[in-house]
Amino acid sequence: MNRIEPRSGVAFELPRGAELTVCDPEGRQVSDLLAYNAQDVREVISNGRTFDYEETLRLGKGNRLWSNRSTPMLTIIEDTVKQHDFLLTPCSEDTFRHFYADKPVHRGCFGNLAEALKPFGIEPDAIPTAFNIFMNVPVDGDSGLIAVKPPESRPGDRIVLRAEMDLVIGLTACSAYDSNGGTFKPIDYEVN
Amino acid sequence: MNRIEPRSGVAFELPRGAELTVCDPEGRQVSDLLAYNAQDVREVISNGRTFDYEETLRLGKGNRLWSNRSTPMLTIIEDTVKQHDFLLTPCSEDTFRHFYADKPVHRGCFGNLAEALKPFGIEPDAIPTAFNIFMNVPVDGDSGLIAVKPPESRPGDRIVLRAEMDLVIGLTACSAYDSNGGTFKPIDYEVN
Repeated sequence: MNRIEPRSGVAFELPRGAELTVCDPEGRQVSDLLAYNAQDVREVISNGRTFDYEETLRLGKGNRLWSNRSTPMLTIIEDTVKQHDFLLTPCSEDTFRHFYADKPVHRGCFGNLAEALKPFGIEPDAIPTAFNIFMNVPVDGDSGLIAVKPPESRPGDRIVLRAEMDLVIGLTACSAYDSNGGTFKPIDYEVN
Repeated sequence: MNRIEPRSGVAFELPRGAELTVCDPEGRQVSDLLAYNAQDVREVISNGRTFDYEETLRLGKGNRLWSNRSTPMLTIIEDTVKQHDFLLTPCSEDTFRHFYADKPVHRGCFGNLAEALKPFGIEPDAIPTAFNIFMNVPVDGDSGLIAVKPPESRPGDRIVLRAEMDLVIGLTACSAYDSNGGTFKPIDYEVN
């Protein structure tokens, strides 16, 4: 397993057919995932296209994550939590100022992803809503209200995703207080 | 009022402070709205940033629509329906093939927006999840399941949005069967 240290992020190529395992080693931690077509990074993961085709906000084993060009990018082939978020954008300097005005500003997952993705020619403006692994965002169907709760993931919980095309992946150990219950922990991953 | 004919779309500049009224003249019709910063079209409306800051999926009077750079683009100042969707992407050739395999393929709101936005230097890949005015997408909070139902808008229902920066707006009269109850109708709009 490779380790993503607390409040940091990585980017790497994931060839078609490869399997990416993302593991929460200590429990109650979130990992923001982005995916781009390695041959043309203008093709990018899309929450809206995924909701279109999967017809649910709650994605788990068997669901696919789709691109803005209506192509499947990743298939979830194993999932011990089945509680992930695809509604909210990566935490950033702006979200720290907004939500944690009394705490030090951090560049957050957004800044970590922007730096990690830069060598692949991906600009900060090309960072969309991420697939937030293990993130617990309950939705009230009547009012529409959403909230960010601590993840239900326990130590060793994992998700495995198979690449359906050659991808560039961005992946973080989340930096925000609310999304991981107020602590900052690592994320582990491996490619098989 | 300007009229958007059934299954078509327009794009136009909306200066900061101007008010855009979008009206459903016949009832049960959807209008997909996109917004870009007129000075730099890489800044674009973001459902994820809007959900971050507004903390609800159900947007109405008083809510703001935010950009990928965490800046308010539009404020909803009047809304007679308070039922809009910000989860799903514009209908397209691909969604017609997927959902309506027995019906003629149409370029949909995606194709209409792509053509209308091209003169402003906006590429098809830069079309994100739209703010789908009057679109009725109930969410089951427990299962996460979503569905597309006919709009509840009646003839003359409207929403008014104030521009918080100089914008390029894309706007359609929706082309998909499910989102407007199986018929295709116009949308009216005006700028004040």
